[in-house]
Amino acid sequence: MSTREIADQLVRMCRENQFHQAMEALYAPDIVSVEAGAPPGGSRESKGMDAVRAKGEWWATNHEVHSSTVEGPLVAGSHFAVTFKFDVTFKPQNRRFTMEEIAIYKVADDKIVYEEFFYNM
Amino acid sequence: MSTREIADQLVRMCRENQFHQAMEALYAPDIVSVEAGAPPGGSRESKGMDAVRAKGEWWATNHEVHSSTVEGPLVAGSHFAVTFKFDVTFKPQNRRFTMEEIAIYKVADDKIVYEEFFYNM
Repeated sequence: MSTREIADQLVRMCRENQFHQAMEALYAPDIVSVEAGAPPGGSRESKGMDAVRAKGEWWATNHEVHSSTVEGPLVAGSHFAVTFKFDVTFKPQNRRFTMEEIAIYKVADDKIVYEEFFYNM
Repeated sequence: MSTREIADQLVRMCRENQFHQAMEALYAPDIVSVEAGAPPGGSRESKGMDAVRAKGEWWATNHEVHSSTVEGPLVAGSHFAVTFKFDVTFKPQNRRFTMEEIAIYKVADDKIVYEEFFYNM
């Protein structure tokens, strides 16, 4: 599949709130995922499907999503960019907030092998 | 100015091939610019207007641009993404090639303070 086909599929699935399913369908086993900042005592980088799946599960468990918007993709060569805007409640603190981020993805051999998120800390 | 206003201005100027003018108008003095890879013996990162200006001048001097396309922006919070597609000749080797990249920008205090380019090496 072309970068654009992978990008369009990711966007379509995320718009249907199928974030977990998109990850399982489109990510390579050795996916590298990079956050804008590291959690306390942790690393910005998660390597491999197990680590990335765990990060996704933590997020899904701890946030109630009131609404989300996905824009894009912009495609260039093997890379594409998407924006995510979320209105969520962080359940452990019952704190509602909005967040906006840009995600950059790299595709190789028909799978997403790299993702990096850009947002203010 | 909002992130979107800065982003729209950058895109408009780049579409008119005013890359240098966009940099002078929109970049903060302490701009940080990050390439996908480092040149031999060099760093991925250029810091400050003098270094970023020098990188831009090297590029402009060594490439003849036959055509260029700018897509975007995608805007999220303080960040935005743009794609650039160039058909250029690298003059020292008289070698014509196309390149596609995604650029991510961060805005603070009405100026671009960070840019990072994503392309295959």
